[in-house]
Parts: sequence; C-alpha cells; structure tokens
Amino acid sequence: MTALREPGIGLVGFDADDTLWRSQDFFDQAQLEFEHILGRYVDLDDSRARQRLYAVEKGNIALFGYGVKGMSLSMIEAAIDITGARIDAADIGRILRLAKDMLQHPVELLPGIREAVEAIAARYEVVLITKGDLFHQEAKVRESGLAALFPRIEIVSEKDPPTYAKVLEEFDLPAQRFLMIGNSLRSDVAPVLELGGWAVHMPYHVTWEHEMEADLGEHAGRMREVAGPDYLVAAVDEIAAAAGLAAA
Amino acid sequence: MTALREPGIGLVGFDADDTLWRSQDFFDQAQLEFEHILGRYVDLDDSRARQRLYAVEKGNIALFGYGVKGMSLSMIEAAIDITGARIDAADIGRILRLAKDMLQHPVELLPGIREAVEAIAARYEVVLITKGDLFHQEAKVRESGLAALFPRIEIVSEKDPPTYAKVLEEFDLPAQRFLMIGNSLRSDVAPVLELGGWAVHMPYHVTWEHEMEADLGEHAGRMREVAGPDYLVAAVDEIAAAAGLAAA
Repeated sequence: MTALREPGIGLVGFDADDTLWRSQDFFDQAQLEFEHILGRYVDLDDSRARQRLYAVEKGNIALFGYGVKGMSLSMIEAAIDITGARIDAADIGRILRLAKDMLQHPVELLPGIREAVEAIAARYEVVLITKGDLFHQEAKVRESGLAALFPRIEIVSEKDPPTYAKVLEEFDLPAQRFLMIGNSLRSDVAPVLELGGWAVHMPYHVTWEHEMEADLGEHAGRMREVAGPDYLVAAVDEIAAAAGLAAA
Repeated sequence: MTALREPGIGLVGFDADDTLWRSQDFFDQAQLEFEHILGRYVDLDDSRARQRLYAVEKGNIALFGYGVKGMSLSMIEAAIDITGARIDAADIGRILRLAKDMLQHPVELLPGIREAVEAIAARYEVVLITKGDLFHQEAKVRESGLAALFPRIEIVSEKDPPTYAKVLEEFDLPAQRFLMIGNSLRSDVAPVLELGGWAVHMPYHVTWEHEMEADLGEHAGRMREVAGPDYLVAAVDEIAAAAGLAAA
C-alpha cells in the first residue's frame, strides 16, 4: 500500500471497549449489583467491599488477564472472602449470572463513532487493537456491524509497548507513523507515545481505576484530546500534518 | 519465502494442548477433585454429576469459549445446580482454587516433541495454532521454551474451517499445501481435511469428549496417524511427498 511509504500517518489504530462501544458502564452496573448482593451479609463501608474487590481483581490480572470471565471469577473469590464464606450458593449463582448477562449484552455503539470510523477508514489504513477475552471481543466485533471497516483486528493480552511494537512490526511501520485512538491513557496512549507514536485520547464518561494509571512524561506533545467521536476526524488530520512535518 | 512456491507442503501447523504439552490430564484431575467436593453433598452416580457438568460446559461454550476460566465458571454453575444450591461458599472457593492451580501449573512438554518440532521447523515453515484463553495460551508458549521455534503463533477462538481458511489467507497458501498436526480429530484434523489440506493425527492418552466428535468422511486419505512425537518427522515427509505428487 503506497500510503505506508508517504510521510505523516500510515496506520490508525482504534481501541474497542469504551471507544467504539459502551463497556465500562456494564462493569460498573455489575459492580453495583455485586455490592447489592453482598449488602445482605456485610456492611459495605465497614467491609471496604469495593476496595477489596478491586484488590482481588488487580491481584488476579497476571493469572486471568482482562475480560468478563476473569472479572466474574474475581467477584466470586472476593464475595467468599468479604463474607467470611457465609454467602449462599444461590447468591454466588447470581454473581455468575451477572457475567453471563454481560457476555450476552447487545453491542451499543457510541453516538457518531460509525461515521467517524468510516471517514477515517476512507483515508487511512485502520486496525482494531483490543485486549480482553478473545472469544467475547470477537463476538462484539461481529455484532457491532463495524467488522467490514476493519480488515485487521488484533486481540492482545496486554497493551504495553512490546505488544504495540509487535503489531507495528507486522505492519512493517515505524512508530512515528502510527496513531492510536482510545479512551485509556494507560493502555491506548502512554505505551504508543513511549514508542514514538501519536495518540488521540477520547475519554469515556467512566473509566476503570486501573486504566487511569499512566505517566505520559515528556511525550504529551504527540497526544491530542477530544471530547467525543465528532472531533476525531479533525484530530487525526491535525496529527497527520504534524507527523508529516516532524518527518520532513 | 521460496518454499511457499514449491509443490508439496508449504506450512506445517502444530496444535498446542496435548500435542506439545500435557493439558487434558489437568482438566481430568480437576474434574476428579470437583467430584470429590460434590460427593459430600450428593451421590455422584444418582445425581449424574459428570454428565451434568459436561452438559453445562457444552452449553456455555458459545458464551465462554474454551479454556480454564470458562471451565471454572461452568464447574461453579454445575456445583450449584447439582447440589440444589446447598454447597458451601468455602467449597465453591475450593473449586475456584482448582482453576487457579491449573493456570499456574508448570508446562510439561511431551517426551520427544522438542526434537520433533526442531527437525520439522528446520525444513518447513511452521505455525502454532491453538484455541483457548489468549492470556493462558500466551503464558504457556512463553514458558514452554518453544517460542523461538514458532515465529508465528495464532490463538483462535474456534478451530473450524473458516478459522483455518483465514489463517491460510494470511499466509497466502492454498489448503492443498497445508499440513496440521494435532491430537483432536474434531479441531485439528477434520476442518483441515475439509478445506483440502493434510493432517497428522497424534492421539493423546486422554481426550476431552468434545474433541472426539468428528466425521472425516471421504477425506481420510489425506490423514496419517502416529503413535507419538518420535514418528512425526517421517509422517510429515511422507505427506509432503504425497502432496507433491497430488499437485504434479
């Protein structure tokens, strides 16, 4: 593809959860229902239920990775722990049901994102880069109606600099010509900037605590922030121009 | 790579679980411990515990996909169901612990497989094609010490003809020049034969019920069966010769 040889931006990556479609809302909703169930056994504040769930989730990431199934196992583990194993099996069944509901929830695209992706895909090569359960992410891509816009989909286990470097190697593209769009500073922005690439940060109205832990350091000049999908095309064009100048 | 243009076999795919390293043994062990826990609540035969667990697992594949996390959630669901929700939270914690132990279990290569993969990788392009949890499979590949032999690793959500067709498209290779090696007739052999490819079936001493459901139809002539890793090199060479004749 000749676009890859030109200066500027040769590839635009899109995050999926909370960038293309709603996701964190459903995790937050599941968390509220989890707390509602636990509230029958313990005082939620005294037991620091939310903090303990987050601690269990974070402790299990190295073993479970990201996604609904790992979240569900962590919730069950935390529920047993927080209630001192007093929780009924029927209530554990309810927690398990939360995960099944999330896995079956219809995909809800963010307003305006389809138009933004179409406009960007018409002028740049694009790729979807998402982490989480392979099975669930593939199902969401299929269901989203956006699969045809993304000839390449990369489902990765962690979004760190080595992972992005491997994706760029497959595309035979220097990081200086790569732009990533996403809602997470930790996963979509910081590692790409660190490699020398560019990023558009599009915050979602809620963000998982884990995804806010990021240090952009001196690289923030290669990031733009937009308020929503309607501003994406302009931000991508602006960065493409800046990347072209930087390469000249 | 010029090998791709020559007749015969241009790419050899390897399955991972129970082909490169032990896997089903650990699932079977977990199942025995699961039954041991349930035995405190119900008569295992009367309750048809094993059949009901398999029914729950099979019913959840469309939602969970393959792998330890999905298995664990299915075990918890089946335990609640089989005991009529009488099971203690502490015992559900023990079932969850089985999954964590499996995810942390050291990788045990099958005897002779490293030598077989080395010999085949020296003369053919190879790829690892495995299904299951992205996160767990990546960890096992890293830990196996075989990662350097496999420049390409494909972790897929299902091993059916469309999935293999997509992998072959990425390699720009007709199925007639592809050979897959694995222990599962259902996942490694039947879909590849159906596409017109070749397969070496290397049965493992135990096989999950689900992986035995396969109908090879009239394609069995493009399959060889071997008793273990020591016979792989000869089987691959024999198929390469047959594929070269078929293409001539």
